[in-house]
Amino acid sequence: MPTYKAPTRDTRFVVNELLRLESYGNLPGFESASIDLTDAVIEEAGKFTTEVLAPLNQSGDAEGCTRHADGSVTTPAGFKAAFKQFRNGQWASLSGPVEFGGQGLPHVIGFVMEEYIASANMAFGMYPGLTTGAVSAILAKGSPEQQQLYAPRMISSQWLGTMNLTEPHAGTDLGMIRTRAVPQADGSYAITGTKIFISAGEHDLTENIIHLVLAKTPDAPDSTRGISLFIVPKVLVDTDGSLGARNAVSCASIEHKMGIHGNATCVLNYDDAKGFIVGEENKGLAAMFIMMNAARLGVGIQGLAQAENAYQNAVLYAKERRQGRALTGPVEPAEKADPLFVHPDVRRMLMDAKAFTEGMRALCSWGALQVDLTHKAATEADRQMADDLISLLTPVIKGYGTDMGYQTATNMQQIWGGHGYIVDSGMEQFVRDARITMIYEGANGVQAMDLVGRKLALNGGRAVQALFALLDAECAQGANDPAVKDVADRLAKATGELKAATMWFLTNGMADRNAVGAGAYAYMTLMGVVAIGLMWLRMARVASAALAAGSGDKAFYEAKLITARHFAQRSLPQAGALRREIEAGAETVMGLPIEAFEAA
Amino acid sequence: MPTYKAPTRDTRFVVNELLRLESYGNLPGFESASIDLTDAVIEEAGKFTTEVLAPLNQSGDAEGCTRHADGSVTTPAGFKAAFKQFRNGQWASLSGPVEFGGQGLPHVIGFVMEEYIASANMAFGMYPGLTTGAVSAILAKGSPEQQQLYAPRMISSQWLGTMNLTEPHAGTDLGMIRTRAVPQADGSYAITGTKIFISAGEHDLTENIIHLVLAKTPDAPDSTRGISLFIVPKVLVDTDGSLGARNAVSCASIEHKMGIHGNATCVLNYDDAKGFIVGEENKGLAAMFIMMNAARLGVGIQGLAQAENAYQNAVLYAKERRQGRALTGPVEPAEKADPLFVHPDVRRMLMDAKAFTEGMRALCSWGALQVDLTHKAATEADRQMADDLISLLTPVIKGYGTDMGYQTATNMQQIWGGHGYIVDSGMEQFVRDARITMIYEGANGVQAMDLVGRKLALNGGRAVQALFALLDAECAQGANDPAVKDVADRLAKATGELKAATMWFLTNGMADRNAVGAGAYAYMTLMGVVAIGLMWLRMARVASAALAAGSGDKAFYEAKLITARHFAQRSLPQAGALRREIEAGAETVMGLPIEAFEAA
Repeated sequence: MPTYKAPTRDTRFVVNELLRLESYGNLPGFESASIDLTDAVIEEAGKFTTEVLAPLNQSGDAEGCTRHADGSVTTPAGFKAAFKQFRNGQWASLSGPVEFGGQGLPHVIGFVMEEYIASANMAFGMYPGLTTGAVSAILAKGSPEQQQLYAPRMISSQWLGTMNLTEPHAGTDLGMIRTRAVPQADGSYAITGTKIFISAGEHDLTENIIHLVLAKTPDAPDSTRGISLFIVPKVLVDTDGSLGARNAVSCASIEHKMGIHGNATCVLNYDDAKGFIVGEENKGLAAMFIMMNAARLGVGIQGLAQAENAYQNAVLYAKERRQGRALTGPVEPAEKADPLFVHPDVRRMLMDAKAFTEGMRALCSWGALQVDLTHKAATEADRQMADDLISLLTPVIKGYGTDMGYQTATNMQQIWGGHGYIVDSGMEQFVRDARITMIYEGANGVQAMDLVGRKLALNGGRAVQALFALLDAECAQGANDPAVKDVADRLAKATGELKAATMWFLTNGMADRNAVGAGAYAYMTLMGVVAIGLMWLRMARVASAALAAGSGDKAFYEAKLITARHFAQRSLPQAGALRREIEAGAETVMGLPIEAFEAA
Repeated sequence: MPTYKAPTRDTRFVVNELLRLESYGNLPGFESASIDLTDAVIEEAGKFTTEVLAPLNQSGDAEGCTRHADGSVTTPAGFKAAFKQFRNGQWASLSGPVEFGGQGLPHVIGFVMEEYIASANMAFGMYPGLTTGAVSAILAKGSPEQQQLYAPRMISSQWLGTMNLTEPHAGTDLGMIRTRAVPQADGSYAITGTKIFISAGEHDLTENIIHLVLAKTPDAPDSTRGISLFIVPKVLVDTDGSLGARNAVSCASIEHKMGIHGNATCVLNYDDAKGFIVGEENKGLAAMFIMMNAARLGVGIQGLAQAENAYQNAVLYAKERRQGRALTGPVEPAEKADPLFVHPDVRRMLMDAKAFTEGMRALCSWGALQVDLTHKAATEADRQMADDLISLLTPVIKGYGTDMGYQTATNMQQIWGGHGYIVDSGMEQFVRDARITMIYEGANGVQAMDLVGRKLALNGGRAVQALFALLDAECAQGANDPAVKDVADRLAKATGELKAATMWFLTNGMADRNAVGAGAYAYMTLMGVVAIGLMWLRMARVASAALAAGSGDKAFYEAKLITARHFAQRSLPQAGALRREIEAGAETVMGLPIEAFEAA
């Protein structure tokens, strides 16, 4: 059985040394986030996820969820008890607003818990996971009464929430949804339609489930401009929060999936269910994007999380499994063979995984800080820059982060050889679970188009210019420190490729929209490589300074420097190839008719 | 349910136009391989696999194999009847030697069937699949009596064979095996031990199973130099081939795996089972490598095969599923949305898949021709060159081919969006089945070490020099044809990177063995990219000539030219990044102690 231990030491490095969260103590909500407090939260979060959730990961996968004849759904053994502990620990409320019962801590801290929970048990984590986004939408667009009624109970995990977007014929293209919302005399709406792929759509963890549902009113425009968002509680709720009658929403079936078996992915039927509009009619897409952006960052973290757990178990195996001898001669001659760990190709995979997971952890936490600063930074300019940066990088964190999460999980399974293909090892579950992260909340190709088709040109390219300025400043400063100069120089070179690719889009994109589409994915990957590179240069600088200051834990900081160089030497060179792929344009991509692809 | 259609048109292009198999009619065994005959075999193979095997792929995955209390194993419903058709059609004997009942056709034709069967139903294909390697070993090292007794019955699929190498503690490191072979008075050996991961180790398809088993005699050296190879029939066989008593080998359990559920992966217990040595004591490793090399090429083909089937089903979905609008405006304005196929990022994935599958098909078939020429070419120099080339490229076909097969299957699943994550779609099965190909018959990291640690330096680098000469000649000729010059120039540049990386190993490898190991995987990938590039340049030249000659099927040849450019423009640029990864050496890869990888 695989084991998981929350990487609290690295988290503390990111929070305290890289982001220096305490330095933001002058901002509202950050004043209480002392190092002592955040360290304590990190340790407790690590303990809870390691001890309570991780042991249920493999059994939850094996058992899956059960739908009963009455449409009720039972979660895997142990999930209900674990959820009670989760709720009692108030783990979902860390960065919830204080006025709705949240603890008001920075999102940076909330993200730490999101990573740990998604590492320990991703299927479990998806029950409370979608709730965060649902609450965001209610807080942003709901009426004061809706906020008072739903937010505190969802932040406290008394009730959980879902996001109902997809229909059988409408996934990415939400303009095509057919679910109808007919206005009723009492101001509510009668919701009718079928939603599919609804994560945590039905379960036995809470007494109520608050569905957030996209639907169309009778006279709505037949496009994304005609979508409205509704709150549809599973059980109707009185104004005092007490539960009333069962609403007309039911689970028709549970999907049989490749992975995340512990989460009930439901087909939900709405049959004149009572719904309450969130905000105005036809303005549902904006509200949906509030949910979606939070969810996309969460999915990027899931990519990291699966890579992290797979990596930990690959390290264990590389240490324990003996096979062959080191190329330079036996390392443990008294044994029949050396541990796998002596083999350079095994080490290469472990180092790649270390470089990705630690770099991605830094990027996600830095992203969470931008979310906080968007709302709380002292000046409008600071708030705008934070918003620009996180808007730009959300598709990169989601798309590149999950691509690499899956690739890393696959490589870690590889270290286990044939044993990793056996279900008992748990290694193949990491791959199957990680696979969904590239698909849901907007497939990664959709992320790439969001990046180059929307985010890049917004406000005259202000966001990407801000990123370039960050990169240039960081590289310039890094070049002055001999310990990190190589990393800085290589990052500067990769940044040059990113700038050139950006310029290429600006020059060619207007004349040939398909050229933008054909290069979008490579561009997302390129920005991902550079963004992780930026994090590694920053981490290397922090490590170099710590070593210069004679800090304890010398081995930790030296490892950071070596891992930074590893990423710089072995991953940043991809930038040039990606740029050339982008500059190839759409000629070959769009050059063939569909018949040319059909087997003959 | 996914559908599969054997890509016979492309196969015929490779066999008849690219390899021009008919031009080898002067060689023994090739004289009967007229275009008419090979075309007929290709069509029939396509028909059989499409109609008989493909429909059992998904049901076989869902049902899996069943082990009964007595140790017998039942294959999924339909497999037994399909196998009877397979045997009656003599599909395993295509390129078997005539003197043992084979049809004596070139391996090129045998490989075509291997691809189709592995596409249609990989789990099924593995039952007869391992038999080919087992027969090779018997024919190469067995006594005349063993050859007469076993080979005809295995070539005719009356009996099937297995390869028994792995033990719980010994996978890659075969020197550690513990299975014992004690000589008996009658010249046989008593075999005792446990073998794991034995594909097709027990089943109900044939009345007998011929296990080829690695074991150690009592006084054998405790290393790979002390391994012997034994034939251990499941049912003992009289000299006339009639069946006798049940031998003491039994299936202890079936592994619960990530994929290939339709194949029984067994733990086999040998308990003083009667075995017959193949060749001499302590010379088993050489015999094993004969099996293994055949199997490795077969696994490379499985990578291609899974990519091909996944690709076909992604094309279907891209054509049928409607979502969103083309970037350049609605293509089918009368419909609510355009087909997925209009989106550049979907097309990018399809083009990448087309470039890989067709390029890999060419490479595998070209490799099969080298296998034939190794034995049958007219001159010793030609035989040697063919042997050099296929020995060099076997780990590349296995390693790079399966990496790309898995990646392609994953991308094709991606085109299906959320629906591809649902088991019913069949798309996730391609990914799960493809995953094993990167692991078994030598994990891909082992392939990389075989390439750089053994094959590269063999005979003073004669093989890689032969490959460079091929590449140089092809690029020089291609540069003269304006229709393919761009592809030739880009391949020449990538070849330059491969040469530089090779030189780097030669210069640095002696002083730092770990630097070779640290760059091995990138080198294997680099050679894979260049090898597929070579095939694309050749195919482009054939297509260019066909178009110049005014051949029919103009669209087919134009598609070849565009796909060649696609690969050249978008994949060949990886060569530079891979070279730089190699030249980074082992410093960061081997720079950290194990403790630096452990979660803290």
